[in-house]
Amino acid sequence: MSAQQDTREKLIEAAMELFVYQGYANTGLAQIARKAGVLPGSLYYFFPTKEDLLHATLEARKRLLHPEVLQPIWESFDDPIERVFGLLAGHRRMLEMTEFKHGCPIGNLVLELAETHPHARALLTQNFEGWLAAVQQCFESAQARLPEHADARRLAVFVLTTMEGAVMLARSYRNFEAYDAAVVQLRDYVERLLADGTQNANSMSA
Amino acid sequence: MSAQQDTREKLIEAAMELFVYQGYANTGLAQIARKAGVLPGSLYYFFPTKEDLLHATLEARKRLLHPEVLQPIWESFDDPIERVFGLLAGHRRMLEMTEFKHGCPIGNLVLELAETHPHARALLTQNFEGWLAAVQQCFESAQARLPEHADARRLAVFVLTTMEGAVMLARSYRNFEAYDAAVVQLRDYVERLLADGTQNANSMSA
Repeated sequence: MSAQQDTREKLIEAAMELFVYQGYANTGLAQIARKAGVLPGSLYYFFPTKEDLLHATLEARKRLLHPEVLQPIWESFDDPIERVFGLLAGHRRMLEMTEFKHGCPIGNLVLELAETHPHARALLTQNFEGWLAAVQQCFESAQARLPEHADARRLAVFVLTTMEGAVMLARSYRNFEAYDAAVVQLRDYVERLLADGTQNANSMSA
Repeated sequence: MSAQQDTREKLIEAAMELFVYQGYANTGLAQIARKAGVLPGSLYYFFPTKEDLLHATLEARKRLLHPEVLQPIWESFDDPIERVFGLLAGHRRMLEMTEFKHGCPIGNLVLELAETHPHARALLTQNFEGWLAAVQQCFESAQARLPEHADARRLAVFVLTTMEGAVMLARSYRNFEAYDAAVVQLRDYVERLLADGTQNANSMSA
């Protein structure tokens, strides 16, 4: 990596962290430069506006989805259904490690920026889409075990709404009661789908 | 209502609306006074700090839960399960009417204030608790139709996480695909619980 690329990456990394922990509006360019250990002039060279930097962090998150979010979970679980619940456990771990400060980086920014930053909003939905495609694929891999009319895309959306809502309640209550309750109910739902799917498979083979 | 009380209510109403539409940090006291049609001096008399006003709006939301949020839905539906889905439809309608600007007022503020405003955070969870208690009661009223081990509190939490996540995705995508998908899956889950509950009731009476 060239020195220039290295500086750019450092700025993106610093901005990503600050936007998550303090929000976009509360983060200043000078603070980002300081955290990255980069001179302000360098920051302005790469990112003339704070919005340019925001867009770069959201592009980076799209690239990092597979290596940083999915891959570690995929390596821990072979079963596609367990991979889905592994993602939910991963977000819980992140909340725990950061004492509820770091929830879902995308979700936070949606509520802050949806109204005012249309280009960022588009990048945020692209991030959701990447995550949804991965979870949809898990349900598609398990399709034979699910009821005939189970819709993998809709199920993926349901997992995402559960996760975003659970993160919000965990951050609000500063405990995991709601997070765990939501996951227990989602698990109960998926178990019922699997039981129903197996029944159908049995009646077909009978 | 005295003139004083009236001024106070106007300020709370104006602040409530501005905090929802633009966020807490982005709203200034002068703007609130202007919107309420009240002199700034009056505002400072009732609410010496913006935080005092924030707390007053969150107290007001607690009081408004029954008359403004629940009552209209309760009057439209007698069936406790339909009341739960009526609440989800109500939030969808609010998003539609406001072109995705007005999601869940409590959820928005949680992500903005959870880290920095501990007293507001406590009031936000009290608002969630009021909502959860009402939905829990719906499931308790339907307990005889649900499976034996169904947990009304956990189910209420699951409805809330679904709603908060669905609102977030609707605001992000500016359409209802994800919102509707999540509600379809939640409905499928509840239908399965009801079918299972009926089965149990039949086998007991048989």
